[in-house]
Amino acid sequence: MADTSNLFKGILSAALTPLTSNLEPDHTLGAAHCKWLLENGCDGLVIFGTTGEANSFSVGERIDIINNLIDHGISPGVMMPGTGCCSITDTVELTRAAVEAGSPGVLMLPPFYYKNVSDDGLFASYSEVIQRVADSRLKIYLYHIPQISNTPISTNLIEMLVRAYPDTVVGMKDSSGIFENMVEVMKAVPGFVVLAGADDLLLPHLKNGGHGCISGCANVSARLNAEVYAGWKKGEDVSKANEKLCAVRDLIGQFALSPALKHLMARHSKNVEWLNIRPPLTMFSDAIVQELYSGFDALNFDIVKAG
Amino acid sequence: MADTSNLFKGILSAALTPLTSNLEPDHTLGAAHCKWLLENGCDGLVIFGTTGEANSFSVGERIDIINNLIDHGISPGVMMPGTGCCSITDTVELTRAAVEAGSPGVLMLPPFYYKNVSDDGLFASYSEVIQRVADSRLKIYLYHIPQISNTPISTNLIEMLVRAYPDTVVGMKDSSGIFENMVEVMKAVPGFVVLAGADDLLLPHLKNGGHGCISGCANVSARLNAEVYAGWKKGEDVSKANEKLCAVRDLIGQFALSPALKHLMARHSKNVEWLNIRPPLTMFSDAIVQELYSGFDALNFDIVKAG
Repeated sequence: MADTSNLFKGILSAALTPLTSNLEPDHTLGAAHCKWLLENGCDGLVIFGTTGEANSFSVGERIDIINNLIDHGISPGVMMPGTGCCSITDTVELTRAAVEAGSPGVLMLPPFYYKNVSDDGLFASYSEVIQRVADSRLKIYLYHIPQISNTPISTNLIEMLVRAYPDTVVGMKDSSGIFENMVEVMKAVPGFVVLAGADDLLLPHLKNGGHGCISGCANVSARLNAEVYAGWKKGEDVSKANEKLCAVRDLIGQFALSPALKHLMARHSKNVEWLNIRPPLTMFSDAIVQELYSGFDALNFDIVKAG
Repeated sequence: MADTSNLFKGILSAALTPLTSNLEPDHTLGAAHCKWLLENGCDGLVIFGTTGEANSFSVGERIDIINNLIDHGISPGVMMPGTGCCSITDTVELTRAAVEAGSPGVLMLPPFYYKNVSDDGLFASYSEVIQRVADSRLKIYLYHIPQISNTPISTNLIEMLVRAYPDTVVGMKDSSGIFENMVEVMKAVPGFVVLAGADDLLLPHLKNGGHGCISGCANVSARLNAEVYAGWKKGEDVSKANEKLCAVRDLIGQFALSPALKHLMARHSKNVEWLNIRPPLTMFSDAIVQELYSGFDALNFDIVKAG
């Protein structure tokens, strides 16, 4: 494995993508949100994770969003754009744009339309992308989210890819929610960066030698995630902050993630722009919103302050 | 319901997309294949069904393929391009291009990344596409293939769409393989064009008032499909042709569809170009190919001649 000191670790938020009422990306609000996440302790930002409605945007729209964030002052050095599409040509175009914009890493879904594809087929797909991008700056974090992609990234596939591309395939986001899977990967591929996709697994994962998390909840819980990470690094007892983080996660996990987080941001920032979402996702009915808000209020947690 | 006389019916082949060794679309071979399918009795061609590796191509590549087929003499009037992508903006761009090229209908997958989306969300998605394309020539055939898209098109959703857009949402391809689902839809939405996705359901579906099929197998079995359809229309006994068609389908159904059909076309046409496929799909090992060929030979079925 290559030197991992320049790779992503710590707390990355899978940033929401705010939209105008025409369902176009709101670049100003998006950049303000990203700045706010960084100020609240995030070490990096996944632009176009599942929470950020990645697959609701065309490749052109996604490149435009990346460039606008940079124009609005967000450093490409903190960005890990999601670039994995169904077609190799789309993935190559978007990945190349991200690398050329200066992103030190991309989060790459496997091609997710076909089902029951083999590890050989997925290897060939990633391999084709890497060879077509043909840029030594490219660092790929594999995106394992089988409950949505229905296309798991097996430990065997990771081993195949790291063996063939040790300087390029450097890490993963494990959104399976299965702690043992992260343990298995870290054992099988020493030095491979493994980022947990679930906030409740962040602390156990750190204790097991894991590198951090990429969190959708961190759009509202960033300070808590950061407090857990910073405290753990200093060897402090972070059980109180972790308990609160898990409670926030448990609450939000009862709802569809992107709309729940957009509702919470709308209330927090008093900006109705947050209530726009691209179909097929939908915002909640009033009754569900009230359930979300009252559940959140019961946690006695202020989005801006930690703990 | 609108007058259905100009809608697709009969035998449509979900045409394969031949590729060069660089995995680029081979427009010349693609057009030759389409012509051959039409000569062998197909009433229409689905360009970019699942069999045609639709989601392995970018929107730009797909528009390019449509235009090249037209340039090579394939009438847009027989084409039903698959245009449903994950993002509304991609679906709109591709659908608009298909309509402007002269396609009298498009096959539209639902947005298939997110899981467990509501009928309201899917309705909003189709609705947004229809309103953005804003062209009265647009005719949509919904693509129900839950085992791959994991996003079923429920009868309830069809009713919602037909109520709102009776002149636009005119039919469906049902690839679920569940005969009762087609029966249910035809009962619930009289006049709605229902095309079976499975060759073995073609004859029972026709007998039940169904309109035809869109078949991947028809890339090699077109003459059989056409013989069943033509004979049934004339009131002839087509049980022999149907039995053969079901046997071909049963055999090919034991393999991954697109590579199996490409292997058979490679052997039939003695053109190794057919052996190219985009990852994550892969062509077969020699052992599997031999199994496919010997199974096919045992059927004593000539791709070009019927029955």
